[in-house]
Amino acid sequence: MRAPALPFDASGLALEDPGPRAATLVARLRLRVLDGRLPAGTRLPTTRALAQALGLSRNTVVRAYEQLLDEGLIASRVGDGSYVAARLPSTAEPAGARGAPASAAPPPDTQVWRQLQAFTPGRTPDGPQRAFRWGSPALDLFPAEVWSRLQARAWRRHEPQSLGYGDPAGLPRLRALLADYLRSARGLHCSADELLITAGAQQAIALAALALLRPGDEAAMEAPGYRAATAALTLAATRVHRVPLDAQGLRPAALAALGPRCRLLYLTPSHQFPTGVSMPLQRRLDLLDWARARQAWILEDDYDSEYRYTGLPLAPMASLDAQRRTLYVGSLSKLLFPGLRLGYLVAPAAWMPTLARLRAVLDRHSACMDQQVLADFIEQGHFLRHLRRMRRAANERRSTLLEAWAQDLTPLGLALPPPDGGLHAFLPLPDARTERALADAAAAAGVEVGPMRQVGGQPDPLGGAGLVLGFAAVPPPQIRDAVRRLAQAWRPCCAADLPCVLRPARSAWRRAEN
Amino acid sequence: MRAPALPFDASGLALEDPGPRAATLVARLRLRVLDGRLPAGTRLPTTRALAQALGLSRNTVVRAYEQLLDEGLIASRVGDGSYVAARLPSTAEPAGARGAPASAAPPPDTQVWRQLQAFTPGRTPDGPQRAFRWGSPALDLFPAEVWSRLQARAWRRHEPQSLGYGDPAGLPRLRALLADYLRSARGLHCSADELLITAGAQQAIALAALALLRPGDEAAMEAPGYRAATAALTLAATRVHRVPLDAQGLRPAALAALGPRCRLLYLTPSHQFPTGVSMPLQRRLDLLDWARARQAWILEDDYDSEYRYTGLPLAPMASLDAQRRTLYVGSLSKLLFPGLRLGYLVAPAAWMPTLARLRAVLDRHSACMDQQVLADFIEQGHFLRHLRRMRRAANERRSTLLEAWAQDLTPLGLALPPPDGGLHAFLPLPDARTERALADAAAAAGVEVGPMRQVGGQPDPLGGAGLVLGFAAVPPPQIRDAVRRLAQAWRPCCAADLPCVLRPARSAWRRAEN
Repeated sequence: MRAPALPFDASGLALEDPGPRAATLVARLRLRVLDGRLPAGTRLPTTRALAQALGLSRNTVVRAYEQLLDEGLIASRVGDGSYVAARLPSTAEPAGARGAPASAAPPPDTQVWRQLQAFTPGRTPDGPQRAFRWGSPALDLFPAEVWSRLQARAWRRHEPQSLGYGDPAGLPRLRALLADYLRSARGLHCSADELLITAGAQQAIALAALALLRPGDEAAMEAPGYRAATAALTLAATRVHRVPLDAQGLRPAALAALGPRCRLLYLTPSHQFPTGVSMPLQRRLDLLDWARARQAWILEDDYDSEYRYTGLPLAPMASLDAQRRTLYVGSLSKLLFPGLRLGYLVAPAAWMPTLARLRAVLDRHSACMDQQVLADFIEQGHFLRHLRRMRRAANERRSTLLEAWAQDLTPLGLALPPPDGGLHAFLPLPDARTERALADAAAAAGVEVGPMRQVGGQPDPLGGAGLVLGFAAVPPPQIRDAVRRLAQAWRPCCAADLPCVLRPARSAWRRAEN
Repeated sequence: MRAPALPFDASGLALEDPGPRAATLVARLRLRVLDGRLPAGTRLPTTRALAQALGLSRNTVVRAYEQLLDEGLIASRVGDGSYVAARLPSTAEPAGARGAPASAAPPPDTQVWRQLQAFTPGRTPDGPQRAFRWGSPALDLFPAEVWSRLQARAWRRHEPQSLGYGDPAGLPRLRALLADYLRSARGLHCSADELLITAGAQQAIALAALALLRPGDEAAMEAPGYRAATAALTLAATRVHRVPLDAQGLRPAALAALGPRCRLLYLTPSHQFPTGVSMPLQRRLDLLDWARARQAWILEDDYDSEYRYTGLPLAPMASLDAQRRTLYVGSLSKLLFPGLRLGYLVAPAAWMPTLARLRAVLDRHSACMDQQVLADFIEQGHFLRHLRRMRRAANERRSTLLEAWAQDLTPLGLALPPPDGGLHAFLPLPDARTERALADAAAAAGVEVGPMRQVGGQPDPLGGAGLVLGFAAVPPPQIRDAVRRLAQAWRPCCAADLPCVLRPARSAWRRAEN
């Protein structure tokens, strides 16, 4: 049957996608009315004619017309069909087609917005794992089959209500298991109701900042330090002071020199990020003194503490703090995998209901099934087994790095201090120029290194420079290969005028017994 | 061999758990030194003696003593063994045993802390799904086998690097699929790079508030309204105005009466929460006018919009807004399951890098494997199939509720307005007293209902009262049974002096064509 002539060009109205047809037709007609392609007073085709022209059922077109009638965009004249309304609802503007940049509102002009421009989130680069990617544990060793099997089991056995909105403090069973783990692994005595499940350490830091800082309060952290923490503190702090380090970590005198408005100190005492320095007991106690005297808080980020190579881990500051002014942040990212987004915040039990409420306001809670599977993983012993395996692998990869380095790079005058713990080594360098030169040369050779300025933000002017080298991401052969490539790439740099000779730092933990 | 006599009581030092022995021994000895049970000058047993007494290897005890020596808690006298140090590091306090409430620091005294006391997060009650639980889709129909199979497949095929830190804006493939879905299902034309994956609608609201509001800015939302949104806006707004409704939703005149500091309006125009009113086109355009005139923003929460029973869904405000002052919030909680914690925020592409940074600061990104599985679920057609199944089930459950209600409760004078969309019905009641009486009677009869004051916060003084009844959580037989129980429980209330007769609201979408 010959398609009836239509009073307007119906091309472009045809519906190619299988979506809800009436709604799509409505959207397209509405757009034409609003942007003027169907001017006021235009007579619309009969529903039968349009249906035939577009290959739709008449019912679909009828529904579409009814909708547009309801919306006031078309009008009916008795016995005379439908017309585009003479007077449209005021100020209806066509925005169906995106991309009218000239009329689009400018972005918000808030301080948060401006501050965010300065923050570049770290992320795992695309492509396979490479040396010396930092922030990455041995992901090649994650027991995916075990995890997957536990997931399948959890789904088979789930009750529908377990898919609903959960406890913002976290799955109770998981909180208890993690509290047990902290007790035995870190000597941190906390109960399940002193532990909040968070979306990684990042959220724990953001939560603490939002909960503890009043308008006008300032925060402090190490310089160089973990930039993602700076960004989180900046959400709530008027100012984030960057406090310089010495061989034992953050310098208490420099901290004390900050005014009384400084109420929150973010710290990585086990294994300073990025330099790797471990803060000794006396220094930790000095900082607890500071917190008590100033009625301030300490946020202790114990990332990576499960990996230690020399000496035993020091007690967390949170376990030394009788005044409970130290909140403890932990993460499963370096034990399991960063993409899981699970961590925890330990705080006094009396605070937990309010912290849980804050979590609920930000994003409710962590995914329920992931928490279930992790709880099963821990309960059935896989977690401790995996932890041991990860420690062994980290140990092996660290040794490989140090041996290969001693062989290929130390002769060039570049000595790498052996890290006491964690998953990265830190190569101190004399200045930013050297840092940039070596980083560029490494990148050109296909080796990932983390320049301190990028990884740790601006240090204090006396802070020097360096490169962060993650050693856990790839197995030993790739480590050796990467060291060889670095040696090739850096040979020219070291042959030049760069003062590359550095003495390895003496570990504070190896004082000989007299 | 007879255990050698020790100079102190070694009971309680024995290590029963299989944890790291040296570390545990260190922790226990440290505690005793710090809390005075091992006073300064006490001579410690030889490493051999203690090892024998505790059944440990001598090496373990040697390591423990070395650690305590490093920490300055014990000292060595040449040829005379080890002693508890005469002068301990200052201010070391025993905090290993938790629960010294008297000395614990008081909770923070911040405005955020105080405001959080007023917020009770909603959560799915423990125990099986029951009528008329609100906020819950038909969880019994979730295709767990399909989801689980896709998860297993994703794990089998995963590359290690996919477990690392991901894109804070979300998995690119998922963003593209959701953008496609919004285009065809909601007529909202947005590209993948205008869509940010969030941890549910809750995080989208929190993100928008934190990004858009400057210190001193105020926000506005409907009253009654979604309380979790109030809490999120309160994170960043000096004040959150509650604006009264009429039969078409939020009243523009009341909004206009707010001062110029009001910069962000949170809205549920498709299906007002909790009353269910759908905002007609003219009212939507009026609010867009307000936003333009005030240089303010609108945050459109389109929860539940996929479920409609009468008429076609109206175009989202975001698609009518040429000025791009409307941000669009969506959630998968009611389509898939709330425990998944996935939603999205649509905003101009130019803003996306900064919004993604803000996400990264708050919690980095959503779990990588969950995003992968969801992308597969959508790509392979399961999502649309599930959507259709959920719509059919919601339709059936709604019809069951309305029929059972007409049979058992309308005769009591309690008429339930049929909801045009969404997963709950709203029973308007004359006053708070009636609301409380009926809610209590329902609870006593084992039926879950949502009192408006609990669910929607304080309405304006003229706002009336009511009960929210979710109808999607359970299959038809349980719905009929719950209605019978309500009829029994409420019969006494309605026989008394409560004015229970209410006329059903006329749906604006059913005006007859002339």
